[in-house]
Amino acid sequence: MTKRPSSLLVVGSVALDDLDGPQGIHPDVLGGSASYFATAASFFVPASVQLVAVVGNDFPQAHVDFFVSRGIDVAGLERQEGKTFRWSGRYSDDLTSRTSLDTQLGVFAGFRPRLSDHHRSAEFLFLGNIDPVLQMDVLEQVRRPRLVACDTMNFWISGKPEELKRTLARVDLLVINDEEARQLAGVHNLVQAVEIIRKLGPRGVVVKRGDSGALLFYEGGVFAAPAYPLEQVRDPTGAGDTFAGGLMGYLARCGEVTPATIRRAMIYGSVLASYCVEDFSLDRLKTLTLEDIASRFRAFYELTHFEHIAL
Amino acid sequence: MTKRPSSLLVVGSVALDDLDGPQGIHPDVLGGSASYFATAASFFVPASVQLVAVVGNDFPQAHVDFFVSRGIDVAGLERQEGKTFRWSGRYSDDLTSRTSLDTQLGVFAGFRPRLSDHHRSAEFLFLGNIDPVLQMDVLEQVRRPRLVACDTMNFWISGKPEELKRTLARVDLLVINDEEARQLAGVHNLVQAVEIIRKLGPRGVVVKRGDSGALLFYEGGVFAAPAYPLEQVRDPTGAGDTFAGGLMGYLARCGEVTPATIRRAMIYGSVLASYCVEDFSLDRLKTLTLEDIASRFRAFYELTHFEHIAL
Repeated sequence: MTKRPSSLLVVGSVALDDLDGPQGIHPDVLGGSASYFATAASFFVPASVQLVAVVGNDFPQAHVDFFVSRGIDVAGLERQEGKTFRWSGRYSDDLTSRTSLDTQLGVFAGFRPRLSDHHRSAEFLFLGNIDPVLQMDVLEQVRRPRLVACDTMNFWISGKPEELKRTLARVDLLVINDEEARQLAGVHNLVQAVEIIRKLGPRGVVVKRGDSGALLFYEGGVFAAPAYPLEQVRDPTGAGDTFAGGLMGYLARCGEVTPATIRRAMIYGSVLASYCVEDFSLDRLKTLTLEDIASRFRAFYELTHFEHIAL
Repeated sequence: MTKRPSSLLVVGSVALDDLDGPQGIHPDVLGGSASYFATAASFFVPASVQLVAVVGNDFPQAHVDFFVSRGIDVAGLERQEGKTFRWSGRYSDDLTSRTSLDTQLGVFAGFRPRLSDHHRSAEFLFLGNIDPVLQMDVLEQVRRPRLVACDTMNFWISGKPEELKRTLARVDLLVINDEEARQLAGVHNLVQAVEIIRKLGPRGVVVKRGDSGALLFYEGGVFAAPAYPLEQVRDPTGAGDTFAGGLMGYLARCGEVTPATIRRAMIYGSVLASYCVEDFSLDRLKTLTLEDIASRFRAFYELTHFEHIAL
């Protein structure tokens, strides 16, 4: 029950994205689940985020420098001969749906994370949305993680269901989209879906619902975090990973997971995600300050607070 | 700034519904916006809800007796020669969408509400989802309402836009679905849509979002009420009207609209709606108790509560 900031290791993708949407084309921007996660988490535990991923020799050094400027440990960011993972997508005019136009795995295809001895001591672990076999591989290298969380997606749910279940059996907290939760459980009702998922292993399940907010199901009950009502959303890319980064970063900062800290962590995740979508790629996160975060945390409190007075 | 319960008049439809959904066919059940609204409101101001509507001579007396048993004043419930308004709808398997199969206006087609002298003194007024010309007609008969709220739907937004705008210009609070808010304003973003709608008249706008909860935009800022995560939803019919009834009923009970009472009213509306969908028609509301309401209000508090602690 320590209160010092804990080390937080994330394994996932670092990518170059080509985005197309109602506000124009944004080619060749920084993307990837681990990029968003690590950057969001770095606000809470600036010297304790460890990024494990792979990029090709086409990956701009400026992006690596940005991670370093955020205090992120990039010793686990391998650079290999070949192309960086590249995702290309197009958003609908109202930004509510997107189509993947192209996915080029590049060096990610042969990625086999090898954790350094230092990284094997990570206390908080986030397994980003990658092949569940790789997630398990990383999980087995970390000695005694105090909290293991993971994300996944439809591609692995339908493509590697058994491998995914083996990973889930060892995960404390699953952070997943609503549609993917339904797919994983095979039922539409979210409460029923979570009940089924929790039987696979995770004690806690966070269901991300886009602009409907996020729900946490855990031993302490259910907690609902709203999405912040924004007047303008520019780019939803990475919002879910940013949410997870804020959530896990805040938990690592607290150093302990309690009913009280995980509720605030849900809100801090929502705060970070609400800023993320205000601009393209990680641009808004690049100018974000702790004062901005504190100010929107207060706004979330105002957004949800009511007094409990008996009838 | 009184605290006594205020009178609450609702004008809207009292109907017979034929419901078809994944849980079977439920023909000939009590429905209509004013039925749900008045019943929900009656929990908060049992002797002060005034129902203004019309039914045909086929309308079962048992339903009228039920309203009376709830303490609802049915002096304004006209009975005319002809058929009661009848709506027939089919829900999709996941209950997320519905198709209107048939709508028979019956006696509702010639409905011209004439308020009694007593009803013209109503303090809180809810104009249910009916022709905006009728809404205005009722509004002009009420002498000095302290709060006027209304609902509307796509049919009137596209069919009688100018008449609707004349009604909205005299309304304090608009309670509307998200899709209808977008349609009324002509923009997708809800924050922008509400800004446009508020320029039409309403100081406050409540956006109902189904299982994503409801948002209140008012002078005091924005308030987000989640939907209660339910393990089983049987029938979403009337959830929005029940929400509005709980909201307005609680405000009438408090006798005043303040930033604090309207936030709790949003939650009481959500409490009532969460019970409503647990069974068909008004069945769940028929067995509901004040203890049930208090218990789920507490559950909503647990669902949303977090401490505001600085980073």
